[in-house]
Amino acid sequence: MLSYIFMIAITAEAMSGALAAGRRNMDLFGVALIAFLTALGGGTVRDMLLGNFPVTWTQHPIYIYLTIGAGLLTMLIARFMHRLNRVFLLVDAMGLVAFTIIGCDVALRLDYPTPVVIMAGITTGIFGGILRDIMCNRTPQVLRHELYASVSFLVAILYLVMRAYGVNENLNLLVSFAFGLSMRLAAIKYQWSLPVFSYAEDQWED
Amino acid sequence: MLSYIFMIAITAEAMSGALAAGRRNMDLFGVALIAFLTALGGGTVRDMLLGNFPVTWTQHPIYIYLTIGAGLLTMLIARFMHRLNRVFLLVDAMGLVAFTIIGCDVALRLDYPTPVVIMAGITTGIFGGILRDIMCNRTPQVLRHELYASVSFLVAILYLVMRAYGVNENLNLLVSFAFGLSMRLAAIKYQWSLPVFSYAEDQWED
Amino acid sequence: MLSYIFMIAITAEAMSGALAAGRRNMDLFGVALIAFLTALGGGTVRDMLLGNFPVTWTQHPIYIYLTIGAGLLTMLIARFMHRLNRVFLLVDAMGLVAFTIIGCDVALRLDYPTPVVIMAGITTGIFGGILRDIMCNRTPQVLRHELYASVSFLVAILYLVMRAYGVNENLNLLVSFAFGLSMRLAAIKYQWSLPVFSYAEDQWED
Repeated sequence: MLSYIFMIAITAEAMSGALAAGRRNMDLFGVALIAFLTALGGGTVRDMLLGNFPVTWTQHPIYIYLTIGAGLLTMLIARFMHRLNRVFLLVDAMGLVAFTIIGCDVALRLDYPTPVVIMAGITTGIFGGILRDIMCNRTPQVLRHELYASVSFLVAILYLVMRAYGVNENLNLLVSFAFGLSMRLAAIKYQWSLPVFSYAEDQWED
Repeated sequence: MLSYIFMIAITAEAMSGALAAGRRNMDLFGVALIAFLTALGGGTVRDMLLGNFPVTWTQHPIYIYLTIGAGLLTMLIARFMHRLNRVFLLVDAMGLVAFTIIGCDVALRLDYPTPVVIMAGITTGIFGGILRDIMCNRTPQVLRHELYASVSFLVAILYLVMRAYGVNENLNLLVSFAFGLSMRLAAIKYQWSLPVFSYAEDQWED
Repeated sequence: MLSYIFMIAITAEAMSGALAAGRRNMDLFGVALIAFLTALGGGTVRDMLLGNFPVTWTQHPIYIYLTIGAGLLTMLIARFMHRLNRVFLLVDAMGLVAFTIIGCDVALRLDYPTPVVIMAGITTGIFGGILRDIMCNRTPQVLRHELYASVSFLVAILYLVMRAYGVNENLNLLVSFAFGLSMRLAAIKYQWSLPVFSYAEDQWED
């Protein structure tokens, strides 16, 4: 179940990466690389950070083909994609929740302490998008927009609390998804966002 | 001893990260992430590079709370912080020396060759600041300003030389700190800097 | 043989890194760091990704001296270097091929599946340049210019196919180099490039 959602989610993330590469006029190879990094970069950073070798996708070449294929396909269908806006946002939100839970599971399996488990979930959820933005030379969007990383954080907390209370795994997944999707979609609809910190004082450090 | 200085230092680094995030109008989550990365990113890169798993901070959740807490606190007190300018520079310099020595120690324990030990020290000292600047989409400051990375380099050399000559560990720490702090503060006061390489010729490579 | 070409190649890559640092007015330390990262960053990322510890260059300090030395030397001779343009492009192309093959070999030795072997080759070939560009705050050139990453991809494929067919290792190297160098130099001469994806539609995602 989680695994199907994961496949759909990395496809959606790859497409978002391809569009970002297109905004920077990258060539076919650049599009493929950014698509791959956006989709699988979060899990890669998590595995490298936790010392979880071999890194997950290296044992599942299908993920490589899927993300690169989705990236290249995006070049062909980009001009029709604005019609898919709503579908895309939904799939992206599903991906955020799925990535977060998978990331928590990996860290749990390796017996990391709870705060690290939460950070592993968030890293899996948001670092693909951060790598995409760094490669495209822009300030990471996930740190500035309406609730996104925070949804990942809250989903991780909820999932772990239910797990600690022995809630059935399937029920836990269901509730986590329902909660995460509602939060994310409501955040988009009502433009919920965290307080922004704007600091413009003359630089006195560095 | 080194461990107390380390705690003070990561707090200061987290605050510097939060201010940089504020200059990019990041939200509360972005501030927390940049604060964390600035404070603990150097040690993380060092551990990932040396294959030193589990990464140090994953076994000390207190570091996570401390750096994120310091980052969020900074949002509240930012407008008073220019008054703390001098304290801040001092603590930052202490952190640079502490990070460098701790980084060398980790690589020594893993039996890496001396040049790698030095690089592990420098990496721990400066990579947090580099990650902060990459995430905030600016050219890393530590590679352009008055002596900073160089102080880390010299402290690493001095520490290792004294160690090789069997100098008592506490004396070694004392001398390394005295030397590093004086160098760094003198560099700020007298604006010492390394020669700058400016290359503006038409691009002929790439 | 491959090892001599590797030494020449990391020297050339280090010089390209130093020039990029010079365009950002970095100081001596920044030049050394960027030179090192450009030359050895690709292999470092590969080793960290594959869990191949200790990372190769940490066991060969000569690589550290060589790349940092080449970077610093570049500061002195930069204004004469445009005369070396052709030599430089040739050496850079040799490096791209050598890096790619070495990267494939490392992943093969660790028994990774074929697509991962190819990606390890490409990572070794191009990630040094990507790190250089990220550190210098510009969009990675290798993803936008005439055939570069693609040459790495094709060399990896050719090398692995010949290997699978039991072609003698030396012959394989010879053919791979001949093919890779011709492709790369022809791509520069005739400005071959991949289709570019330009996407300028109003942002509807993120």
